[in-house]
Amino acid sequence: MFNKICIIGCGLIGSSILRAVKQNKLASNISVYDKSSKVLAYLEKNFPNEASKNISEAVKDSDLIILSSPLSSYTEILLAIQSNFKSNSILTDTGSAKKEVNKIIKNLKLKDVNWVASHPIAGTEYSGPEAGFATLFKDRWCIISADKEISKNHIENVEKFWIKLGSKVKFMTFEDHDYVLSLTSHLPHAAAYSIVRTAINNEDRFKDDVIQYSAGGLRDFTRIAASDPLMWKDIFIDNSENILKVLENYSKNIEEIKDAIKKKDGQKLLQIFSSTKKVRKKIIDAGQDTEKPGFGRK
Amino acid sequence: MFNKICIIGCGLIGSSILRAVKQNKLASNISVYDKSSKVLAYLEKNFPNEASKNISEAVKDSDLIILSSPLSSYTEILLAIQSNFKSNSILTDTGSAKKEVNKIIKNLKLKDVNWVASHPIAGTEYSGPEAGFATLFKDRWCIISADKEISKNHIENVEKFWIKLGSKVKFMTFEDHDYVLSLTSHLPHAAAYSIVRTAINNEDRFKDDVIQYSAGGLRDFTRIAASDPLMWKDIFIDNSENILKVLENYSKNIEEIKDAIKKKDGQKLLQIFSSTKKVRKKIIDAGQDTEKPGFGRK
Repeated sequence: MFNKICIIGCGLIGSSILRAVKQNKLASNISVYDKSSKVLAYLEKNFPNEASKNISEAVKDSDLIILSSPLSSYTEILLAIQSNFKSNSILTDTGSAKKEVNKIIKNLKLKDVNWVASHPIAGTEYSGPEAGFATLFKDRWCIISADKEISKNHIENVEKFWIKLGSKVKFMTFEDHDYVLSLTSHLPHAAAYSIVRTAINNEDRFKDDVIQYSAGGLRDFTRIAASDPLMWKDIFIDNSENILKVLENYSKNIEEIKDAIKKKDGQKLLQIFSSTKKVRKKIIDAGQDTEKPGFGRK
Repeated sequence: MFNKICIIGCGLIGSSILRAVKQNKLASNISVYDKSSKVLAYLEKNFPNEASKNISEAVKDSDLIILSSPLSSYTEILLAIQSNFKSNSILTDTGSAKKEVNKIIKNLKLKDVNWVASHPIAGTEYSGPEAGFATLFKDRWCIISADKEISKNHIENVEKFWIKLGSKVKFMTFEDHDYVLSLTSHLPHAAAYSIVRTAINNEDRFKDDVIQYSAGGLRDFTRIAASDPLMWKDIFIDNSENILKVLENYSKNIEEIKDAIKKKDGQKLLQIFSSTKKVRKKIIDAGQDTEKPGFGRK
């Protein structure tokens, strides 16, 4: 599909792309770079043909360059590789926030390369290259965004790439992407981190009980609150405008529940709790979760 | 184990107890009552030997009476059956809040029966008798509470009953139970209902996108927000004091995240997000969740 693919950043997502590209034979040449010496050592051991110690060498001659490092690392990486892009190559990424990154990349006025953003909505609560697997993107959505001046051909090449990895693709503007993701992903993460922080107070004499009896709800949220802190710090800063607005609405909904509890207003509580029941069914019907009770946990 | 067991209320929990008691042969006689004619019809079809149309008949001669109906139904049920208790029988329940219920039951000054509360920390997002299964309580905790005047023998009999259903048991005071559960279960439910309400706004032109791209976090929360509204309305009213206090702390934690986002304080966000990562591991080590990525969803 591409002659050479370069992956910069090899954590859960980057290493899953590496495995999937190899397995599906999507490039005759793959080059992977990570700035962490620990990750590089892992790559040299497990992917000796693909590991690269030199970021410029890794990018050189690549038809597709994929950034799968934290959002805050993009500028430094792009400054380091800006003179190494092959003419008419494609630059993509896998980040969860787009608008700010797009501004940064446009301001860099990169030459020879066409910027088409990707966001695969796939992942687990684990981080690092050992956590990746080739089927991570299978049957998952990947959202593609690009500016109007980018040619249709380049956008289609990126879409085809994700389809080859098993994903379904959807084109969205940078702005729409950031708004939708603030609701579907960034709000749930902010809430999950806050729930776990509220429930686990190390000063509390019940802190061990809270772990032990977590199956009544808390355990579900600890999964998301175990996500990579560095990655999430960047997302919250990059998409701050949407996230603040959404958290404002969220606080209002929490206040409404508090108010109903204070007044012991059973009717109001019943109305609040009933309104969300059918959303689960819609998500299952859309193929976005299992219908098995408790996620089919064993 | 008991000569006759009576189950009042046959939803997810009651019907799972029924199935488990039958499968494990824990009683020579089982009687199940539910005030819903739809549930009764289900029982008459699927459990013809156990179904009972008359609540007094169901309770008569029972050694163990299990309330597994919503908390708000307890008073009415107990007033209806108070003259039918066998001498020295045991009354238990399966409710998620204890302190208020204990007050109500003590005020009724029931004769012949010994009140030992149970709370099996088990369940799924589904409701109704079709949703139950015999292994629901296997390897799950069941919290037992009783007043000081209740004999050790009766408490042990209830504990043995849950152990026979596969559960691990823990004795806790009514007050401690309600505090711990407000953290592990009631807070996560309040948050989940509010997240789903915030994310799904039917006026929003992105409402279908929010369903479609829910795999980045939201889908996890829709499971809990699909729980039985009537049951949860009762829990929030019965355990209002603890829940309000916990929600107050939760709001403070949300405000702290908002504040860090406003100031683009990366260090603070990193600190917040890092503090919750190890909780997941503790919950897995305590045998309270699977370590498989994404709950092992398929």
